[in-house]
Amino acid sequence: MPNPNTTPMRVIEETPGYWRVVFDYPPFNVVDANVFEALQDLLIRMETTESLRVVVFESALPDFYLSHFDLTGKIGNIMTAVGPSGLPILMDTFVRLTKAPVVSLAKIRGCVRGVSSEFVLACDMRFASRENTKLGHPELGVGLHPGGGGTERLPHLVGRGRALEIVLSANDFDGDMAERYGYVNRTFPDAELDGFIDGLARRISSFDRRALAAAKNLVNRVSLPPSDRLLDAFASFGMALGWPEAQNRIRSVLERGLQRDADFEKNWPEILGALLEPERKVGRDDSQS
Amino acid sequence: MPNPNTTPMRVIEETPGYWRVVFDYPPFNVVDANVFEALQDLLIRMETTESLRVVVFESALPDFYLSHFDLTGKIGNIMTAVGPSGLPILMDTFVRLTKAPVVSLAKIRGCVRGVSSEFVLACDMRFASRENTKLGHPELGVGLHPGGGGTERLPHLVGRGRALEIVLSANDFDGDMAERYGYVNRTFPDAELDGFIDGLARRISSFDRRALAAAKNLVNRVSLPPSDRLLDAFASFGMALGWPEAQNRIRSVLERGLQRDADFEKNWPEILGALLEPERKVGRDDSQS
Amino acid sequence: MPNPNTTPMRVIEETPGYWRVVFDYPPFNVVDANVFEALQDLLIRMETTESLRVVVFESALPDFYLSHFDLTGKIGNIMTAVGPSGLPILMDTFVRLTKAPVVSLAKIRGCVRGVSSEFVLACDMRFASRENTKLGHPELGVGLHPGGGGTERLPHLVGRGRALEIVLSANDFDGDMAERYGYVNRTFPDAELDGFIDGLARRISSFDRRALAAAKNLVNRVSLPPSDRLLDAFASFGMALGWPEAQNRIRSVLERGLQRDADFEKNWPEILGALLEPERKVGRDDSQS
Repeated sequence: MPNPNTTPMRVIEETPGYWRVVFDYPPFNVVDANVFEALQDLLIRMETTESLRVVVFESALPDFYLSHFDLTGKIGNIMTAVGPSGLPILMDTFVRLTKAPVVSLAKIRGCVRGVSSEFVLACDMRFASRENTKLGHPELGVGLHPGGGGTERLPHLVGRGRALEIVLSANDFDGDMAERYGYVNRTFPDAELDGFIDGLARRISSFDRRALAAAKNLVNRVSLPPSDRLLDAFASFGMALGWPEAQNRIRSVLERGLQRDADFEKNWPEILGALLEPERKVGRDDSQS
Repeated sequence: MPNPNTTPMRVIEETPGYWRVVFDYPPFNVVDANVFEALQDLLIRMETTESLRVVVFESALPDFYLSHFDLTGKIGNIMTAVGPSGLPILMDTFVRLTKAPVVSLAKIRGCVRGVSSEFVLACDMRFASRENTKLGHPELGVGLHPGGGGTERLPHLVGRGRALEIVLSANDFDGDMAERYGYVNRTFPDAELDGFIDGLARRISSFDRRALAAAKNLVNRVSLPPSDRLLDAFASFGMALGWPEAQNRIRSVLERGLQRDADFEKNWPEILGALLEPERKVGRDDSQS
Repeated sequence: MPNPNTTPMRVIEETPGYWRVVFDYPPFNVVDANVFEALQDLLIRMETTESLRVVVFESALPDFYLSHFDLTGKIGNIMTAVGPSGLPILMDTFVRLTKAPVVSLAKIRGCVRGVSSEFVLACDMRFASRENTKLGHPELGVGLHPGGGGTERLPHLVGRGRALEIVLSANDFDGDMAERYGYVNRTFPDAELDGFIDGLARRISSFDRRALAAAKNLVNRVSLPPSDRLLDAFASFGMALGWPEAQNRIRSVLERGLQRDADFEKNWPEILGALLEPERKVGRDDSQS
């Protein structure tokens, strides 16, 4: 088994046309520079493998899909270096995924917050476990705001009112709410999720690559946010990282257990409305921890 | 108690960061020049109070949130004078509310029709009573069309087909339909609505003002209609007010009881499909009146 | 009774303001040059009949609304000749329907696939039978992609993720799913569908023509896709018709029974994921056939 700290995902080639990418980066699948490096490598393979039609993105950890952006600083140069599209690596990764000729399906189980929500929003379709999904944008709760496309992609999917609720409440949305809002395509009972996605992936992988690429491109032309808007958000996010109130809040969630304590990691958006007050216990529902 | 005819709302400062604005303008919270003047005053306070994060808009009258545009002519200069944005007062009020750094939540109970629907569409989020909501655009039924942003904001929220249904049917939508269509964020059983919104408002008010303002601004940039489109609708509405068929229909609803008779006021969209036929009784369901 | 092969629809003038157009083109209401010619004639009548307010489009065949584009080549000059708008006939028909001053309601029962889905997407509102609706875009399954507005209209209605699912899965969506996704306005139990639409059509037809036209025009200005995007899709579709892999797939579905065998015609999207594999039986649920 490779070192889990440096190989955050593995690729399973189900057929020449259908791959599964499994995030496996214990303990929490935190999104750091290694995750972006692996995604960059994968994008080159996706763009250049002529047989490939569909990639399914899933997690090996039952409670975490991708948890969130690394707040301890292990983000390498993903905010500063540019990728093949000319955009910063973080943004380049998401934009190239949306424009790839290959179809991307997010199979969601567990926690998916912040930049991880932005990853699934950059996938072509999102299907989630009805019982085991916590999807959201907690950035406001740590003094920041989404910077990797969340504020640009959510309004098209869910409308301005629900997008503002998701972003400004900094709260989790479970599978049912995510489906009702259109945040995900739909949810399935956890036991049916794998079967549905496997069937859909095999079906799509039987179709012709240039027809799939042409259809996706046409949909993209009326549904992707302009690059200028994405860069506005990215630049504003970069500024926000330096705000003292954000640094204060980030320090507080790290001290309380973020990226260390599994219970806190599962439930931390709960306490964001009282982050700067005297400490309260999270995960009050013992059955969840 | 101040004169209810000239002070249509009161502001309750729950905390320095969270205000409730209560419409209390008996008998029906009709939207006239006084309402716009009070909203203009409030906007200045919202824009200049550094501690403020969230405003909740609600009604003191159980059956009426804001009922509709005053059809007896008490609209002062709101169609002609311009506000600080350079837009006519009616439009300026709604546009500034959408762009304010402060977050606005509509807590909806009762009737919300026409320009009142446009007010809640200009709020950042809409939450409604499941049992006690009548939301809609009856303008077509009195020979007019929406002129304060309804035709521009609804399609983004609910899609073209549902927007055309809401606008062209001139019918009421109850809480359940409004939620399914995405007209409101979501509904709650009436007994749970206050608690949910209070919790959300307190949570958001604990976050940092510049992070909230930056996030809202980013969402706005990809979700607000262009001013030119809003002005097209406004100008067309101004023309429609002079159409003889509109004046004829307006005279008819006023004669039948609009702005005078509580039963008619609650149910008037019901009869709009037969307005110019011999009079029929509305409010046939006695339990509603 | 006129020759069903040349008169694919009839117009029933319920009132001067409300017409029903009934597709009756056995055996399957396949969309060919005759259907477009009849729609072109209807559009001229709709645009020039001053009394008209609403047209309801429905089918006389219980299992087929409009089934799909004729794949045997009976498409006349609808791809090459231009209509009054300057667009090719196929596109001209849909664009003029969206812009007509008359309101169009699709009353959906049965199969509605490909170009037929694009027809209902060009109607102002879509209401469907809960029990008897199969709506979808099977084009990818025959090596093509939507070319008559599907890729441009769906994302606005259902969001990018669900639009990509509908287009790239090439699968049917039943009434329930179509409503949840916003593909149709809403569904009704089959026994209630006629009554609801008749009531809505009569109500709208009581309103004033210029108010209806102005309101629809305002909604259109913020919700219709640009002509350039529609033409991109149309041109790409024209190219795709010449791709060898598409011709191979089209030949296969025709050999298996498309446009000949009623059971195959009802269920053919089922087998598109295995079209080029050894033949399998469709319509495995005997109760459906």
